Amino acid sequence: MDDPLLLAERWAGEGQGVALATVIETWGSSPRPVGSHLVIHADGRFQGSVSGGCVEGEVVSEAADVIATGSPRVLAFGVADETAWRVGLSCGGRIRVFVEKVAWQWDLATLAELNALRRQRRAAILVTDIATGSTRLVREDEVAGDPLEGELAARLRSGRSGLVFEPGKDEVFLAVHLPPPRLVVIGAVHIAQSLLPMARLAGFDVTIVDPRTAFATPERFPGCDVIAEWPQDVLPRLALDRFTAVAVLTHDGRIDDLPLRAALDADCFYVGALGSRKTHEKRGQRLLDAGASVAQVVRIRAPIGLPIAAQSPAEIAVAILAEVVDSLRKRGTQP
Amino acid sequence: MDDPLLLAERWAGEGQGVALATVIETWGSSPRPVGSHLVIHADGRFQGSVSGGCVEGEVVSEAADVIATGSPRVLAFGVADETAWRVGLSCGGRIRVFVEKVAWQWDLATLAELNALRRQRRAAILVTDIATGSTRLVREDEVAGDPLEGELAARLRSGRSGLVFEPGKDEVFLAVHLPPPRLVVIGAVHIAQSLLPMARLAGFDVTIVDPRTAFATPERFPGCDVIAEWPQDVLPRLALDRFTAVAVLTHDGRIDDLPLRAALDADCFYVGALGSRKTHEKRGQRLLDAGASVAQVVRIRAPIGLPIAAQSPAEIAVAILAEVVDSLRKRGTQP
Repeated sequence: MDDPLLLAERWAGEGQGVALATVIETWGSSPRPVGSHLVIHADGRFQGSVSGGCVEGEVVSEAADVIATGSPRVLAFGVADETAWRVGLSCGGRIRVFVEKVAWQWDLATLAELNALRRQRRAAILVTDIATGSTRLVREDEVAGDPLEGELAARLRSGRSGLVFEPGKDEVFLAVHLPPPRLVVIGAVHIAQSLLPMARLAGFDVTIVDPRTAFATPERFPGCDVIAEWPQDVLPRLALDRFTAVAVLTHDGRIDDLPLRAALDADCFYVGALGSRKTHEKRGQRLLDAGASVAQVVRIRAPIGLPIAAQSPAEIAVAILAEVVDSLRKRGTQP
Repeated sequence: MDDPLLLAERWAGEGQGVALATVIETWGSSPRPVGSHLVIHADGRFQGSVSGGCVEGEVVSEAADVIATGSPRVLAFGVADETAWRVGLSCGGRIRVFVEKVAWQWDLATLAELNALRRQRRAAILVTDIATGSTRLVREDEVAGDPLEGELAARLRSGRSGLVFEPGKDEVFLAVHLPPPRLVVIGAVHIAQSLLPMARLAGFDVTIVDPRTAFATPERFPGCDVIAEWPQDVLPRLALDRFTAVAVLTHDGRIDDLPLRAALDADCFYVGALGSRKTHEKRGQRLLDAGASVAQVVRIRAPIGLPIAAQSPAEIAVAILAEVVDSLRKRGTQP
């Protein structure tokens, strides 16, 4: 078990003293992003990383004090850049790390709930008061009406953790937990052969589905989850959700229509369909006839991809991926 | 020598009978795009491809007749899809192939000039009358005033070859020759580690330049042309031109400014610079102070990348690549 938050829950659940260290601020170049965790057991074991090795030793040592006293603290470090400028200029970065005792100021149930939400691929933000160490967990559906509503909503789109001042209160750290975004492509066509590797580079978990066994092969899609079956047979397994993008690329309603409808029903953050306007008109009519709502049909991105005048299949893949990222990062702000 | 047009020039220059076959139209799925060439020597040797192997034999056989008679002809083929639908539906495509005798209706000098332009990375379109086989070569700077001006200009952006009707004349085939687009990235930073492999997938030749030897390593940029030197020392070697995109990503004027100015002077189709608006204001002032024109400075894409709310370095890479493709395919139509 490598996940620091799962490990923190387990160790604390066993009644052990556990500290959690979190990168709450960075300047310049820093090896690990804001929100990165290191979990430390009272016996000195630790897991995770706040700096890629530069300052972990000191954090672990401070964590022993935090476990003993229960008082959270903020540590500041200058991080020498290991990959220093070899031609005369040294550059580096600084980080601030918050160290708290797990399940001390706050309940272990909060950590367990956060981990449960993560397992369920649901978004949430853990709000921690840096001065006191007290925390509260805000699920995505609880953001409306929160004192930090605007800030929380923006961070649920960007996925960025960070420090803010809660109105009339102390500085709080917002640890933003978004499910890893996924991209499911229906149609193992030429465009998909570019789209999937690009999407993997962009941080998406990718799955390709096509019942045509000659198209959906591991050779054509190295490193991808390749499913050479009819969409209707694998839809439950795909577990489409709000952090999944679905792009249908076969032009063939017998393959595309069902997963398209399923993506709309699952409120996937992106639903795109390849095809001319004429093809898409017919498709829209079929979906309406099959019971889809007008609101659903107009959500489909078609013609697919940002209008960058893409020519080759690989350029169309770029247009689609840019549209997927745009939809992910502007969730809830678009009509 | 694998290039069919270079081989055609060489063989014809040696006084041999040579035929050139060109895919002029496709329907459905076809293995090779419109504009693909197969060159056939009178002795039966051939190079290139019009169908990935399906119909080459028949084309070579017809080519012997064309070489003997000098009369061009159009061949039509149904192409069975090798990657056929394994679940019941057969799908396939059709292609039309134009076969002509090289340097017969037209001068060998035309072919030599086309090949010279290709070597110089200059765009041109070879216009061939399908009925007569007569050709004329239109360079990019000769498009204005041409009877096909609008069509030629659009195809010099899209890069797509194809058939059109010349006003009051026969059907003509436009063989569009664009130099392979290149992307030069200054700054071997995190964004570049995603941008370069994505750009390669999208069909760009990629080069990365950074004087910081720890950043610019083959390990960080597998398969890329990695140059760990100061831009000023390698600019002549980079041979920036109108089919090159330049993105500067270091934030450091000592590294970025010179190649930025060189990219503007070379009229690169895309010039982008990473940095906040404030950073870019200072950069713009430095460039003006150094003698750049206002028209040049406003051409710089900054903030870099399409506005897709990209968060991670890899997402910023997607935003940049989409902007590069957009600029390539809308060359000359933007302010």
